[in-house]
Amino acid sequence: MKNRVCELFQIRYPIIQAGMVWVSGWKLASAVSNCGGLGLIGAGSMKPDLLREHIQKCKLATNKPYGVNLPLLRGDIEDLIKVVIEEDVKIVFTSAGHPGKYIDRFKDRNVKVAHVVSSLKQGLKAESVGCDAIVGEGVEAGGHNGADQLSVFSLIPSLSQNVKIPIIAAGGIVNSKGILAAFALGAEGVQVGTRFAATVESSAHDNYKRKIVEAQDNSTVLILQKIGLVRAIKNNFTERIQKLESEGASVEQLREALGAKREKLGIFDGDVDEGLIEAGQGVGLINDIPAVKELFDRFISEINQETVVLNDKLKVFTND
Amino acid sequence: MKNRVCELFQIRYPIIQAGMVWVSGWKLASAVSNCGGLGLIGAGSMKPDLLREHIQKCKLATNKPYGVNLPLLRGDIEDLIKVVIEEDVKIVFTSAGHPGKYIDRFKDRNVKVAHVVSSLKQGLKAESVGCDAIVGEGVEAGGHNGADQLSVFSLIPSLSQNVKIPIIAAGGIVNSKGILAAFALGAEGVQVGTRFAATVESSAHDNYKRKIVEAQDNSTVLILQKIGLVRAIKNNFTERIQKLESEGASVEQLREALGAKREKLGIFDGDVDEGLIEAGQGVGLINDIPAVKELFDRFISEINQETVVLNDKLKVFTND
Repeated sequence: MKNRVCELFQIRYPIIQAGMVWVSGWKLASAVSNCGGLGLIGAGSMKPDLLREHIQKCKLATNKPYGVNLPLLRGDIEDLIKVVIEEDVKIVFTSAGHPGKYIDRFKDRNVKVAHVVSSLKQGLKAESVGCDAIVGEGVEAGGHNGADQLSVFSLIPSLSQNVKIPIIAAGGIVNSKGILAAFALGAEGVQVGTRFAATVESSAHDNYKRKIVEAQDNSTVLILQKIGLVRAIKNNFTERIQKLESEGASVEQLREALGAKREKLGIFDGDVDEGLIEAGQGVGLINDIPAVKELFDRFISEINQETVVLNDKLKVFTND
Repeated sequence: MKNRVCELFQIRYPIIQAGMVWVSGWKLASAVSNCGGLGLIGAGSMKPDLLREHIQKCKLATNKPYGVNLPLLRGDIEDLIKVVIEEDVKIVFTSAGHPGKYIDRFKDRNVKVAHVVSSLKQGLKAESVGCDAIVGEGVEAGGHNGADQLSVFSLIPSLSQNVKIPIIAAGGIVNSKGILAAFALGAEGVQVGTRFAATVESSAHDNYKRKIVEAQDNSTVLILQKIGLVRAIKNNFTERIQKLESEGASVEQLREALGAKREKLGIFDGDVDEGLIEAGQGVGLINDIPAVKELFDRFISEINQETVVLNDKLKVFTND
């Protein structure tokens, strides 16, 4: 059986590194692509000129396929798309918005488009407008989350029963166990975020990387439901927001408490008390800051070991 | 490799039917046990005399192992334990409380004890007091949920890395894909709730079963965070609670809005608008109301088919 995600993006392993604000520039993306996965430059924290710079550096750092993640709700999305097309990027992952408005421009230039969805309804819509693949992102994911709060366990089988294009599972996937489980649920690829955020090549601040390593299973929390759900590591800032939310704070009050550039403060500037430390629920399973190559080798060798273990365990269900 | 859950409970398949209020009496439990799984009588909605009646009927309906689920926070828990011991029940699943206080009485009589946990901390504690197994229940589960809101994807690998006793995964597991994924994450057994609630032998009202069948992926919601998180299917009642919560309602206001016997109203009396329709996030994947035997046969045959499919899919990771 061929892997459709590998065929679509012309990569060796169906492991995609999520586009992450302040984390995934050319350095991380090219390192992942060089290992046979698919690296994504996260345009979410870049102005158009900076995005162009990262794309150009990425092309110099790898001759393997790479992609760009575009958050469609950005005010300057047209300028970002212009850069992507001018720089001849061949793979785009879209999120936070509706791909239908933009997809023709990509398809006309043979750009492959995967859209991030968090419910079956969104998945069906992405398929109907012509996306080549979808990323089914569970509520375990760091950063922005869908309002329905579907976990990977609920979302991926729903998508896999109802959608024909390939499904890439995302949210809380940090090791070989998660990759195997995602495939068991019906995915043909995985998108891994937080685990790649805590690597040598990630452009995040060391304080942020250390915070991920120190975190436990219950260290993340969902906040800001009224203005757009976000998962982050608990700190002074999230506690303040949770208190406000518990008291029934309004959208305006929450916007004021959030302020501007809260992600940059936490992830890039390293203020882990007052910044927004976006991270997925899998943080408790992350215990080191390896180079991407080391992490990738670990994924592949552990997947092969765990496949053997899993097959042994499943013998209990054999009809004999 | 032997399956430790099967050995512990002396069952053929490591599939456990969750104890569910107003749903899992002797009829459902014995049907599951007769198929080679482990049926649990849910004592949560039973007074001690009624529990005794269900245990006695269960013993007449099956000569296979069965168990009783005991919510330890019940005011009359001592009376429930007395019944369990007098009736010589050999398997107990404890939830909602600390098993340490009661475990010696069970161990002295060679009763096997599994405790339901929703975080690594709780799992380590259950192991340290001498539980034989733990049920790791993700936030996908219907009914009461842990405050940390860990999904199966985050919880099971954490437990499996840190706990030595067998782990049974629960929450959102409704079909063979979920069972395979749970095993991939490190579980040696699964506890299935909502899927068994929508069977012929479930004692729930037909309206409740139909509501499960009609539900979509995004039909459930988490409510009552301030007084104890519960997952239920959205209806008039949950909307009212969500509005109150959004306005910052106090514990007292929420208790008043909840009132008494809200689960019975929904699940047993069939008032699906005003009752509490406890159900897991996997409801969107449930589309029929089969007999337990039919469902069980489906599980086993699909697990075997999907294992072949999964192995084919995982070949993409093979080092060659």
